This record gives sequence, structure tokens and C-alpha cells, in this order.
Amino acid sequence: MAIRYPNGKAYNTGLDKKNSTPKSRYVKPTLYGGRGMTLEEELNRSNEYYLSKDIAVIHKKPTPIQIVKVDYPKRSAATIKEAYFRKASTTDYNGVYKGRYIDFDAKETKNKTSFPLSNFHEHQVEHMRKCVDNGGICFAIIKFVVLDEVYLFKASDLFYFWDKQNNGGKKSIKKDIIEELGYKINYSLNPTIPYLDAVDELI
Amino acid sequence: MAIRYPNGKAYNTGLDKKNSTPKSRYVKPTLYGGRGMTLEEELNRSNEYYLSKDIAVIHKKPTPIQIVKVDYPKRSAATIKEAYFRKASTTDYNGVYKGRYIDFDAKETKNKTSFPLSNFHEHQVEHMRKCVDNGGICFAIIKFVVLDEVYLFKASDLFYFWDKQNNGGKKSIKKDIIEELGYKINYSLNPTIPYLDAVDELI
Repeated sequence: MAIRYPNGKAYNTGLDKKNSTPKSRYVKPTLYGGRGMTLEEELNRSNEYYLSKDIAVIHKKPTPIQIVKVDYPKRSAATIKEAYFRKASTTDYNGVYKGRYIDFDAKETKNKTSFPLSNFHEHQVEHMRKCVDNGGICFAIIKFVVLDEVYLFKASDLFYFWDKQNNGGKKSIKKDIIEELGYKINYSLNPTIPYLDAVDELI
Repeated sequence: MAIRYPNGKAYNTGLDKKNSTPKSRYVKPTLYGGRGMTLEEELNRSNEYYLSKDIAVIHKKPTPIQIVKVDYPKRSAATIKEAYFRKASTTDYNGVYKGRYIDFDAKETKNKTSFPLSNFHEHQVEHMRKCVDNGGICFAIIKFVVLDEVYLFKASDLFYFWDKQNNGGKKSIKKDIIEELGYKINYSLNPTIPYLDAVDELI
């Protein structure tokens, strides 16, 4: 395994100088973001940190699969031979923080100026609505991947733009609005994405 | 689809008398239980009811699968060609009720006099402990299938017997104890298993 700095960049030992081209040895000079991790990986790491410190128990749900055919070979594990991906009927993450129910979905966009609402499905928004109705704390974590910026956006704000869209409104939320209504989450060493700091402001 | 009474028994229209043997026309005379549903099916139904009445949002998590090989045929859905079942690192059910985080696992036993602790895995018990530490409401729903009796058993009580077992104690919990410390849940029409009534006593 390559040794990496906390910011995710490989530690250049200089041992592979002979075989490496100048390009592959180039080290990006930024200290923030650009870790090459997906938002999902960043959140899983953050959740592992929160779990290890007994701050919160939040997990990503497994991907729902429709299993069609399973083989049970002798003396080895059951093998799924035919299965299909199913649409999730809920959001991807949930758990408990300070006794409260936490429920959110994570979405990445390559767009630099706005967040397309098509990233959400109707059933996910409906699930969030039900959770809010029952006292849960719901939100979206939105990452503008090109800008390496992450925001927590309250479900109640999301519902507003979602409903407006359904009544002929815009199909996306301007980044300015997300900056104003949402909570910017700055990358940190541990947890990578300290989103519970923003949740503290919601409670 | 066969028409069924609320207790799950088929409505005998008498139309198929000619083709049916006396045995297949026999209708079990009990009004409770014996619906031929697994505890999981009963809980899923109950959760659907709670969701439809906006009482709680509680879902069973998808089974965790390790996907190894996926085919992407042209003009049709991606097909998983090789995958394996993974051990769940959490319990099966979680969600929100009255703003509180709910987390539980459902276990069936054919045993009539005691509940074998081997039904639980160490990591499930550890997960419940973490949830309780963070203010979640955790429990087990235990069904004695032969007796058709269902109990809610608090996680804190489960921890007691689990830890005792790890220190050389008994490998099962006597049914008497479950009756005394747990909450008996009587089958009802809707929800099938009204377990949130028992949760009300925990809150």
C-alpha cells in the first residue's frame, strides 16, 4: 500500500524515480480536497470516525438488489448467479446522533453554478418528507466536485425548490442559493467531512 | 389472486370443490397467528401500515451483497453475474418514531422454552450498544414460531444476558425471563405486529 499524506497525496519516496515519468511524479500543490475520493468514500470515512469516537452511529445502507438465482456449491459460500439493481426507496444514509434520527442523501454534481434537481428521485424526496413529518433531521449533502465544495442543504429548503419545479419552476438550484441557505462544510483531517457540525446548527 | 380473510386464511368460494381434495379444503380453525408469514413479512407489513398512517418511518435494510461481476448488456438492465452474501454489520431495521431513533433486529426461534443467544452475532450486539450509547431506542423482536408468540426485548436486557454468556453464563434466555422482562405483542389486524405500542412503554 502506498503511504499517503493526510490530504490523500502519495508520499513520494523517490525510490521509483528511475521508472517514473516526470508527469507521474508531479504532486498537486493544494492542501485541501482533491483527494481523489468520491463523496461516498469521504462520508464513509467520516462516519467511521464518528462511530469510533462514539459521536454518532450513521451508516450507508447496502445497495438494494433483486436476487434471481443463487447457487449453493458444496463446501463453499452461496454464490449469487443472477441479480439486478433495484431503485432505492429511501435515502442512502441514516442513523442516530444525540438521540435524534438523522437521514440524508449525498449527491455530487460536476456543475459549477447550480445543482440540478434531477439528482433526486421523487421517492427519495417523499421519504425525506415522511421522515421530517415524524421528527427526523433530514438533509442533502451536495458536493460541487469541480470546485471541491461541500454543503449541507436542509430537506425543508429542498422541498421548497422541488415543489416549485413541479409547478413549472426551475429544474435546478443556483449555487448562490445553496451558499446562502445551506451550510458550507470545510474539509478537515478527521472527520474528512465534519457534517455533524452543521447538523448542530439544525437541532 | 386468492381472496383472503384478514387472518390470512383463503376465502373458500366452493368453486374449486371438484378439483380439490378434502385435505386441501381444510380450514384451520384458529383466528390468531398461523398466517404462514415469516416474522420478517409480518414486520414489513406492520412497517408499511405505520408508514401509510404517518406514525413512523421504519424500513428493513437491504441485504448486504459483495458484487464481483456485472454484465452491461446493450438495451437492457445491468445484470449481476457473480456476487456473495456479506455479513451485516448492523441490525436489520431502523427508522424514526416520534423524532426518536429506532433500531432493532428480528429473530425467530423454534425453541419453545428458551431463546438461544446464538441467534445474535457479536457485531450486531456491538452495534446496538453503540446506538444505545448515542440515545437510540434499541431492542430485539423475538418470535417463538411454534407458539406463535412475539415479544419485544429491550437491548439493555439483552446486553446483560449476552455479557453473562461471555463470562461462562447460559447460552440462552429462558422464555419465563423474556415473558417477565419483555413486552408481549399480541397480533392484531393492522398493524400485524403492533410493536410501537411496546416502544411507547420504553420511551
